[in-house]
Amino acid sequence: MKKIKVSDYIIQELANLGIKNIFGVPGDYNFNIIDSVENNHKVKWIGSTNELNGGYAADGYARLNGYGAVITTYGVGELSAINAIAGCYAENIPVVMLVGIPSTKHIEEKSIIHHNFAPPDYCNFAEMYSKVTAKAAYITKDSNIKEEIDSCIETLIRTKKPVYIAVPKDICNWEIDDNPPQHINTSSQDALIKAGNKIIEFIETSSNPIVITDSLIKRFNAEYEAERFINKSNIQFCSFLMGKGIIDESHKNYLGTFLGKTLSKDILDSLNISDCVISIGTIYCDFNTFNAPLDFNPDNMINIQGNYVIIKNQKFENVFMKDLLKYLSDSIKKQKSRKSPEIHGYKPSAITKIENLNSKYLYPRIQEFLKPNDIFICDTGIALFGTAPMKFPDKFRFENQFFWASIGWGTPAALGINFAKTYRRTLLLTGEGAHQLTMQEISNIIAHNLHPVIIVINNSGYTIERMLSKNPKDDYNNINEWDYSKLPSIFGKNVFAGQAKTNKEFDDLLKLAETEQKTKMCYIEVFTDKLDIPEFAKIKFKK
Amino acid sequence: MKKIKVSDYIIQELANLGIKNIFGVPGDYNFNIIDSVENNHKVKWIGSTNELNGGYAADGYARLNGYGAVITTYGVGELSAINAIAGCYAENIPVVMLVGIPSTKHIEEKSIIHHNFAPPDYCNFAEMYSKVTAKAAYITKDSNIKEEIDSCIETLIRTKKPVYIAVPKDICNWEIDDNPPQHINTSSQDALIKAGNKIIEFIETSSNPIVITDSLIKRFNAEYEAERFINKSNIQFCSFLMGKGIIDESHKNYLGTFLGKTLSKDILDSLNISDCVISIGTIYCDFNTFNAPLDFNPDNMINIQGNYVIIKNQKFENVFMKDLLKYLSDSIKKQKSRKSPEIHGYKPSAITKIENLNSKYLYPRIQEFLKPNDIFICDTGIALFGTAPMKFPDKFRFENQFFWASIGWGTPAALGINFAKTYRRTLLLTGEGAHQLTMQEISNIIAHNLHPVIIVINNSGYTIERMLSKNPKDDYNNINEWDYSKLPSIFGKNVFAGQAKTNKEFDDLLKLAETEQKTKMCYIEVFTDKLDIPEFAKIKFKK
Ligand SMILES: Cc1ncc(C[n+]2csc(CCOP(=O)(O)OP(=O)(O)O)c2C)c(N)n1
Ligand SMILES: Cc1ncc(C[n+]2csc(CCOP(=O)(O)OP(=O)(O)O)c2C)c(N)n1
Repeated sequence: MKKIKVSDYIIQELANLGIKNIFGVPGDYNFNIIDSVENNHKVKWIGSTNELNGGYAADGYARLNGYGAVITTYGVGELSAINAIAGCYAENIPVVMLVGIPSTKHIEEKSIIHHNFAPPDYCNFAEMYSKVTAKAAYITKDSNIKEEIDSCIETLIRTKKPVYIAVPKDICNWEIDDNPPQHINTSSQDALIKAGNKIIEFIETSSNPIVITDSLIKRFNAEYEAERFINKSNIQFCSFLMGKGIIDESHKNYLGTFLGKTLSKDILDSLNISDCVISIGTIYCDFNTFNAPLDFNPDNMINIQGNYVIIKNQKFENVFMKDLLKYLSDSIKKQKSRKSPEIHGYKPSAITKIENLNSKYLYPRIQEFLKPNDIFICDTGIALFGTAPMKFPDKFRFENQFFWASIGWGTPAALGINFAKTYRRTLLLTGEGAHQLTMQEISNIIAHNLHPVIIVINNSGYTIERMLSKNPKDDYNNINEWDYSKLPSIFGKNVFAGQAKTNKEFDDLLKLAETEQKTKMCYIEVFTDKLDIPEFAKIKFKK
Repeated sequence: MKKIKVSDYIIQELANLGIKNIFGVPGDYNFNIIDSVENNHKVKWIGSTNELNGGYAADGYARLNGYGAVITTYGVGELSAINAIAGCYAENIPVVMLVGIPSTKHIEEKSIIHHNFAPPDYCNFAEMYSKVTAKAAYITKDSNIKEEIDSCIETLIRTKKPVYIAVPKDICNWEIDDNPPQHINTSSQDALIKAGNKIIEFIETSSNPIVITDSLIKRFNAEYEAERFINKSNIQFCSFLMGKGIIDESHKNYLGTFLGKTLSKDILDSLNISDCVISIGTIYCDFNTFNAPLDFNPDNMINIQGNYVIIKNQKFENVFMKDLLKYLSDSIKKQKSRKSPEIHGYKPSAITKIENLNSKYLYPRIQEFLKPNDIFICDTGIALFGTAPMKFPDKFRFENQFFWASIGWGTPAALGINFAKTYRRTLLLTGEGAHQLTMQEISNIIAHNLHPVIIVINNSGYTIERMLSKNPKDDYNNINEWDYSKLPSIFGKNVFAGQAKTNKEFDDLLKLAETEQKTKMCYIEVFTDKLDIPEFAKIKFKK
């Protein structure tokens, strides 16, 4: 049997998953692992400006590429990234978190070494990671090393959740068998057929079935199958915010994005009276449902998740979303058609007179900027309320993190997404508050000559929090004033940067960005009032 | 009994500890806590640019002020800060980590809400924190709330380690008795006398006692007592790196900073042949001992820690360093004197000809810049090898993080330290690699009109890692090139910034900084070659 070094084996497995860029920060405990990256010509090392940003970048990368990876050093490095990995856990982003840890000699002798405590505890950090990953492997001398690694990769593929692998420095150089298993991820045929037939019968005997599409469809790569199911069954569907844009928003069966009880009263009624709600890849969290009263009777529910399905309270394990939707599409009869409303989104923006920029112009104009094939990334903040009512083009990609909702995610995620799909145009929309947390990662965007358009909304602080806290004027929602549009010049030359204070200036900059974006990063700072919020947010917050 | 709201009570307790500035980032789960900060006129809220930086700032603040605190929101916020708190745990920095978490209603109903998972797990993060704090309190409906809080504060004071308190949003507004306990932290008299007498007998019957002073002396506020003990006993002492400068480096009994087996062979020999090593507040980790072979026979050892002492393998609990040193000083007889070497540090820097800046000039010139009462902060990197051989002035303060050794700590820690002691001049020395991780925190230094001198060593990457990894030219130790000296201008106007490429330029800038520093932050970027390292590092890495 051919042999291979442990860290080479892991990196080879990552390459086999289609990972081409690996993010992270070096440290003396992980040099061996990064050497394995450098020695594998299929993968490239992208040094991050810090570990949290590395984790977010791997998250963004995995969203578009399928899988991602980040490498950090022991303790200081891995703990800095844990928030990013927890986000991947919440949102089903399959990222491998790889950590170089002290040599087994140190562990055995309980040496007091840097990045640890006195007395030392070597397993602490792995235990923490076990809470935010689908599997955390802490390799030791006594581990069946290959089995542990293989099982992590298998878990990653099956659950689409992050996994953690910690490898002692010396063990990186140990040799193991070089026979990676085939990870075959197919449904249990028996369960698939049982569940599939049950669903078909359920739908065909129901009088008003309705589909909800949401973000886990993307996570389990079932976009095509979901759309086909809708076409074949002819059932009407709405999308939840996190999954907005997965299926063409011009689809004749589309009811729109569900925006909560006031704005989407019709959808809410349809959902609540339906005797067969087919929920595909849905995350039922407060932000995503806009806290709407969705009181589904489980007897009226089909909940299709990534690797299981629940039909009227009965759970079928090992039924993959992709397989199930295919099975359903192959057999389902076309349901009787109903008329869906036409989705318009914002009315086209128009400048009748020059005025200070505000949400009324900002979001419609951004909608107008969007084209098929674009990737649109929105960080958490008031912008999500401006984005939710947009109508997206076809073959579009919308990425957000509205469940984990860690601000600052957007900037490094945009880096990762750009690495995964450099040829697709990318737009990042972020509040300046979120941006402050992680802004140094644009240095990597510039250094690697990536060309996203970045719009930073400078509204003098944490506007969304002004809506949520008792007093919109609370001091703690003010933040330091920065000269954002000069920021990119710190990191490099090949940048298009500008500021827009009026609707006209914003319009002009976006027009320029259309061309500039082909050769450089475009960085646009827009100014809005600190209490300026999209119409939708006004309704939501009744302010 | 007077009543008080839970979050008001906690903030009042922090104020009672002498905490005047509280760092952190708001979020919808912690508004009630921050409102309590705003409502207490003894404390001021300092919004951080991100949570990790907030944690580091609280760490820096606690080092000078005695105690510190940081407030974050649930999940996303607390996990972002956990590396900073782990650093406090490693290095005995008493910081209160305060987290606002979801309402008990959500917890009871197991709601799927933002910053959590599906299915939710509400205790996960508190469990993680229990691994890096002396006590982690997760307040629930059924907690004895006041007891939990009081016990956290008591633990903080006793152990000088961080504690964690998570309070559900609604419970912040509950009322509890407003009778904070007196936290009296005195040694068990019985143990103190037994241990004290044993030590005195041990010392007085030994033939060559020697003292090691180290950083936990500061953490347990025993600087005065340690110096008095040395004066009274007349025993020679050396300092470990982390504790460098605690006792005047001109002291006649001083043997110098212990720099490992090659540079400090004499000290090593004295330590290893001593029949009575009195180790005060020492951290025996690899960086701090420079991996020296310190094979103390426990029978020759007195290990004085913060709240216990080990004498020849016998542990006496509840004996506080401060009390013990006082007890010893009151009774110990003057030992016979020995001649200590005179400590010179670097020879005064001199410019004979103008040349590119390098370590030979850089570190001696920095030594020259230092004055009594200064606070000198050094981030982890090659600079620690340049700093270790310096001779510090009297009444000096040196802060570093060489045990936890998380790069990027220095910049936010400098902010916190400045808040604690604004009237003392502060110098931060950081590699540009470390600086990249957390540099946005200088925006707070500028916004709050603090005046540290910041020296950023731009040596084109991770120089210390080039020494440690196989190949100094490894790509992954290169980092993106930034225009550092322009960075402060993004954050504000009132800044003195400059670049030094030659010895002369550096000299000139430091001379200007002497005055400029009185009214503004001074930010000096210095360029050295990527393989330029201090002499001491050359010996250490034999390169
Ligand atoms: C890591 C993290 N820290 C804190 C929060 C709480 N939080 C949610 S939104 C927000 C403010 C965002 O401000 P900004 O990006 O400027 O958006 P806008 O002002 O446009 O709403 C904060 C602090 C969070 N979600 N994540
Ligand atoms: C949070 C964290 N990530 C990674 C490391 C590993 N590490 C130790 S030193 C260092 C490089 C520091 O570079 P720089 O600050 O430029 O110092 P210099 O080049 O002068 O040595 C790194 C990456 C660490 N200690 N902490």
